[in-house]
Amino acid sequence: MKVELLPDERIDMLYNDDVHIIQSKSVFSFSLDAVLLANFAEPRKNGRGLTVDLGAGNGAVSLFMAHKLAGQIVGVEIQERLADMAQRSVKMNDLTDKIQIMNADMRDIFSDIRPGSADMVVSNPPYFTVDNDHTVMHENKHYAIARHELMADLDLVTYTAKKLLKNKAHFFMVHRPDRLFEILASLQKNHLSPKQIQFVYPKVGEAANIVLIDAIKDGKLTGAKILPPIVTHNADDTYTDAVWSIYEGRQQHE
Amino acid sequence: MKVELLPDERIDMLYNDDVHIIQSKSVFSFSLDAVLLANFAEPRKNGRGLTVDLGAGNGAVSLFMAHKLAGQIVGVEIQERLADMAQRSVKMNDLTDKIQIMNADMRDIFSDIRPGSADMVVSNPPYFTVDNDHTVMHENKHYAIARHELMADLDLVTYTAKKLLKNKAHFFMVHRPDRLFEILASLQKNHLSPKQIQFVYPKVGEAANIVLIDAIKDGKLTGAKILPPIVTHNADDTYTDAVWSIYEGRQQHE
Repeated sequence: MKVELLPDERIDMLYNDDVHIIQSKSVFSFSLDAVLLANFAEPRKNGRGLTVDLGAGNGAVSLFMAHKLAGQIVGVEIQERLADMAQRSVKMNDLTDKIQIMNADMRDIFSDIRPGSADMVVSNPPYFTVDNDHTVMHENKHYAIARHELMADLDLVTYTAKKLLKNKAHFFMVHRPDRLFEILASLQKNHLSPKQIQFVYPKVGEAANIVLIDAIKDGKLTGAKILPPIVTHNADDTYTDAVWSIYEGRQQHE
Repeated sequence: MKVELLPDERIDMLYNDDVHIIQSKSVFSFSLDAVLLANFAEPRKNGRGLTVDLGAGNGAVSLFMAHKLAGQIVGVEIQERLADMAQRSVKMNDLTDKIQIMNADMRDIFSDIRPGSADMVVSNPPYFTVDNDHTVMHENKHYAIARHELMADLDLVTYTAKKLLKNKAHFFMVHRPDRLFEILASLQKNHLSPKQIQFVYPKVGEAANIVLIDAIKDGKLTGAKILPPIVTHNADDTYTDAVWSIYEGRQQHE
């Protein structure tokens, strides 16, 4: 389906051009993190039932996951401009039957989505605390809200995930390893138990810069598996084969 | 210095034969874990001051670290037979001036070691809980005590480390990743903040089976660095170059 693009927008393609997504440098572009999260999140029962994407941005994670989910996806995005971009990308990919974009604060979604009704929640939330002196906030408001915990912080995201999920259903999140302890504490507080953790390293010999977390609602607190490491870049700054196979291939899920 | 060997004992060598260690299959043999811990633990100020090795076993970690420590090492081992093996290995390596082996319960060491006096604590503690249904306890009492939390559990080890350490001094521990949350909770309870975590993977594409933790006494709880992964074995089950360089080379610390 054809959709209209605003002047600052372009269309990027993923998965051997199977997925088209509207991007805009002036408001928001998805990053490798969204691609890794969509690859990491593993649906149960062929993805039947409801998946909720908290902080959907321009819809990247929802769009990248659509092919492996038999059920419905609701992407919740507080920023009107981003929700609009996501909505148009959904149309462009003929996925309006499968993906619904809600332009809403995640505090206000429970009149539309029944608590305890989601089979899976995924989130690529803002990474940076607002009081962190070391971080200069992006001057662009769209980026600032997507990157900093201005509208939603870690605890709100994990609390909302917990409230959305069915018992024993999974929450998949991508975040920064330097906030690992806060993440684990926040999950624990909300009765979400990490079952699998995967660290992503920018290069061989460098510290991890991304962490992927798979937590289960009301699971037991021991026994998390640390999955094999992912290295994203070669020494010459090109993507590794591991990343290209995720970007292009969908091998694991076709 | 020559020492006597018991009938079931043999001598193993490490670091290009620089370190000799008495081993015995019938009571205890050190593992790769001890070698990784000794390599991971990074002394401050050239290792001046006191290092304490909690649960020293046959002295492997203390012996492997001696070359990078300018100060004294006290190895605490509750099992008399293991402490005796460790003591004889210390003699054999002419390290009696540097390493002291205490045959003691770590609950009882504070009449000999002043609280708050250690510049570094290292530990390769028992990994397995006693109530874990999935684990069959070793019939051999020596192995059972070294591997299972019969005489010392995680909380006792972290509590003892905290009590031993000077303020801002480091605790280095090797453990199992499937107990990561308990480890983090136990450290936090004892005001030890993880600063660096390194996961060790048996092979490319497999889940981690060892975790190395560097925690600081009274440090802040955010900002842990996830160090580059270590892979220990090639596909054909031989050790990787990374492991051989640790086993043979001491490159990093000479």
